[in-house]
Amino acid sequence: MTDERVEHPVTGLDETVHQRVRLGILTIAHEARRVEFGYLRDHLGLTAGNLSKHLSVLEAAGLVGIEKGYEGKRARTWITLTAAGSRALAEEIERLKQLISRVESTGNV
Amino acid sequence: MTDERVEHPVTGLDETVHQRVRLGILTIAHEARRVEFGYLRDHLGLTAGNLSKHLSVLEAAGLVGIEKGYEGKRARTWITLTAAGSRALAEEIERLKQLISRVESTGNV
Repeated sequence: MTDERVEHPVTGLDETVHQRVRLGILTIAHEARRVEFGYLRDHLGLTAGNLSKHLSVLEAAGLVGIEKGYEGKRARTWITLTAAGSRALAEEIERLKQLISRVESTGNV
Repeated sequence: MTDERVEHPVTGLDETVHQRVRLGILTIAHEARRVEFGYLRDHLGLTAGNLSKHLSVLEAAGLVGIEKGYEGKRARTWITLTAAGSRALAEEIERLKQLISRVESTGNV
């Protein structure tokens, strides 16, 4: 017997990466060598607490590195995309493209 | 003074639509006039409880309609995409395209 169920593209999406805020963090981190905490907070329209929560999820998954330091006398937190983070973002983008292609091939969207 | 902060594409994503499972439900509902509960459950790899929870969120937002009926003697639940659901899916797809274009213009992904 053949299992006729076909997996939908969204079943391959990783919620660690797909979640709206985290997708934003990974996208911005992908654009620069490193990105400052306050920049992420402002550009994504988040509170510091909410941003910290999502950064912890990404760090625990090994997708970003977090580095604390100083810029002059000011404490700063810098976020960098890891190699695994870069691969995870690429995979998310690939799956989103499959999803878009599926939606666009089946209707008027 | 000019506010130089530019909003990131993910800030425009609606979590009601973007969430992985709900995006799958809307995409499948978009592909057919109506879709049966068990079909969604199997194709998205969900438990009935998890699917019900996400359908309630979509129904409360007016993005899907839920209709109960019979197929022969079997109770069935049918899901249809509303006009608002169709617009919301189209908007999500449009924003995802902007995001993909931004990622692809700034790196090796």
